[in-house]
Amino acid sequence: MSKGNVIVGQSGGPTAVINASLAGVYDTAKKNGTGKVFGMLNGIQGLLAGRYIDMKQYVGDQVELLKRTPSSYLGSCRYKLPSVEKAPEAFQQIFAKLKEWDIKHFFYIGGNDSMDTINKLNEYAVAHGIKDITFMGVPKTVDNDLPITDHTPGFGSAAKYIGTTLKELICDSKVYPDIKLAMVVEIMGRNAGWLAAAAALAKDQDCDGADMILLPETVFCESAFNDRMADIFKKKNSVLIAVSEGVKTADGRYVCDALGSCAKDAFGHATLGGTAAVLANQIKAKFGAKVRPIELSSIQRCAAHISSATDVNEAFGAGEAAVKAAFSGISGKMPVFIRKSDNPYVMNIELTDVKNVANVEKKVPDEWIINDGTYVSDDVLTYMRPLIQGECPPIMENGIPRHLVLKV
Amino acid sequence: MSKGNVIVGQSGGPTAVINASLAGVYDTAKKNGTGKVFGMLNGIQGLLAGRYIDMKQYVGDQVELLKRTPSSYLGSCRYKLPSVEKAPEAFQQIFAKLKEWDIKHFFYIGGNDSMDTINKLNEYAVAHGIKDITFMGVPKTVDNDLPITDHTPGFGSAAKYIGTTLKELICDSKVYPDIKLAMVVEIMGRNAGWLAAAAALAKDQDCDGADMILLPETVFCESAFNDRMADIFKKKNSVLIAVSEGVKTADGRYVCDALGSCAKDAFGHATLGGTAAVLANQIKAKFGAKVRPIELSSIQRCAAHISSATDVNEAFGAGEAAVKAAFSGISGKMPVFIRKSDNPYVMNIELTDVKNVANVEKKVPDEWIINDGTYVSDDVLTYMRPLIQGECPPIMENGIPRHLVLKV
Repeated sequence: MSKGNVIVGQSGGPTAVINASLAGVYDTAKKNGTGKVFGMLNGIQGLLAGRYIDMKQYVGDQVELLKRTPSSYLGSCRYKLPSVEKAPEAFQQIFAKLKEWDIKHFFYIGGNDSMDTINKLNEYAVAHGIKDITFMGVPKTVDNDLPITDHTPGFGSAAKYIGTTLKELICDSKVYPDIKLAMVVEIMGRNAGWLAAAAALAKDQDCDGADMILLPETVFCESAFNDRMADIFKKKNSVLIAVSEGVKTADGRYVCDALGSCAKDAFGHATLGGTAAVLANQIKAKFGAKVRPIELSSIQRCAAHISSATDVNEAFGAGEAAVKAAFSGISGKMPVFIRKSDNPYVMNIELTDVKNVANVEKKVPDEWIINDGTYVSDDVLTYMRPLIQGECPPIMENGIPRHLVLKV
Repeated sequence: MSKGNVIVGQSGGPTAVINASLAGVYDTAKKNGTGKVFGMLNGIQGLLAGRYIDMKQYVGDQVELLKRTPSSYLGSCRYKLPSVEKAPEAFQQIFAKLKEWDIKHFFYIGGNDSMDTINKLNEYAVAHGIKDITFMGVPKTVDNDLPITDHTPGFGSAAKYIGTTLKELICDSKVYPDIKLAMVVEIMGRNAGWLAAAAALAKDQDCDGADMILLPETVFCESAFNDRMADIFKKKNSVLIAVSEGVKTADGRYVCDALGSCAKDAFGHATLGGTAAVLANQIKAKFGAKVRPIELSSIQRCAAHISSATDVNEAFGAGEAAVKAAFSGISGKMPVFIRKSDNPYVMNIELTDVKNVANVEKKVPDEWIINDGTYVSDDVLTYMRPLIQGECPPIMENGIPRHLVLKV
């Protein structure tokens, strides 16, 4: 009797280590004697269109290279599976494909939207008495905003990039002591400030770190900001401000809108970005300082060249844990990291129901935000430092990182 | 009899390896039995103000850490030494200090302005019969725009960062195949397009590379740009454009001014930056594409975490060569790299008169610019690939690079 096949997909925004989780699923499934490991192309959207690959044919034994390749090897999608009431045919279509391809285990690597998808598929299977397919989520998101899990794969590498780059920028900013200069570094995070809080990692024995760290969890007040800038400029000439793209004023408007004007996307929603520019203009106008707005943009989420070995290994481990659980018959769950100790860092992988994760957002705790919302406490360091330990350098060829890229 | 002392300074914009040249000067001078090695703080400006350190007290045996620290350890200045006719007192002051501190050898690490300074000091010494002090330049600039030398220390590491980051961004940009997306990456280079041309390094067996590379050496034509964008979008949905901050339209205006409006500095000069945003807006308006303007900003010149080992070693070697020449009595020169062969890469260090270098700018050759000024030929790869070989990873502590930072 066939042991059946496995299918795996990736969804949502890419990270530096989402492919390490894919490698974990692929490698563990292979080693545990599954049939084929299929990869759906562009997530559920590709599955619905019948687009998939046999991963062995494409990845083969290049697991190490896959682990060190940023972004989503299988491509991604923004498609959110509707409810079964609204679109029963989508579910029928998916389950027909899974049957046709003899799928016994379904894995979806993504953030809370993806866990919503896994939850819906699992509930559909339960409701329809389909017992021979398991559905497992694998966590990922640079934003680190999933609940229950201590942190999410992808975050540690982004945090390491942010800490490293800010430290280098601070070195760069200090060379002309007679020039008043403000670098304003804009960091991703629409609602949760985890990535912006990672700016705190730049501070150590040889670096003063950022002079302000502004998170979306606190309200931005223009006059308080100006007062603090004035205080900082009294003490030093070169200043670095780390700001989350999602900071808002008291009336709930994004700072880039309240103080300037955000660009709008096709739907009229503010496309964030531009917060650094708006704050830099403020500083220039108020203090006559030279300013340099810097958006870390997509670079921060795909900088695999400075990824955290801890993060890469944990991402792989999350994929591995999902497969082991699924192969033992568990369904509707997602591996989560449960921290047992900070120092030494001890992290257990356990499982939680995907419905606990779906559509919930975890924010930076209030008590970690200090100095009237302009900096973060040492709790941030205790929490983040273990997540950025170790390097997982890319496989270099001709002076540039090699990647495993899918050419179908 | 005292062998006298050495003084060294850094000037102009920082790079990832300017401290490797400083380490080369310091280490070689020490090993060749000099007296003290003084570091002037913030270049000539600090020297005039009597601000200097005894490097042994601060650097000690931490040469390896200094080599791997980005930006200018001794600080920098934008002060350009006036002509002796205009400011004889500045020269008298400098030579009085050099005498007071028993300086026999003077080293200045910088770009063409710094070589102008060395040239002026050397000519003053010759004109005034001062024979016991040598003046040597040590090349540096990320812009790679110095003449005579094959390339400049600092450029290789910036090129490696640009190639690596663009490759990662291209991975990131491709995950949603149904979304029309243009990343526009703005790269430093006001007049010379060497850094923007380094975008070509992203193209290899697993990456299509940038779709356009726009240098300041060619004229930007809006309609030709739009036509080419239309062609590219016919073939693919996700596009990456690399553009130099210094690109200009036929009437000599910067693109950010001609198509939008550049910010102005205190003197009313356009502060570049914003070119990516302006082009991205064009693409959005004409093609309805989602756009992501990304400025590599100062990050590209200080990203020591992905520096080129070739560059670091050559930067050190340039400092070493300057000291050896000076100690043999040579003055008014600068080490230059003379390429003997591309593959295997053979690079000799020779010397040239600083006056050949001062105030001259080397641009990307016309014949290396192809496709109506929208891409570069493989000559760029033959030229640049050797310069980005090897890694010189930072000394990591707690997951973040350690730096040697001066605290006076």
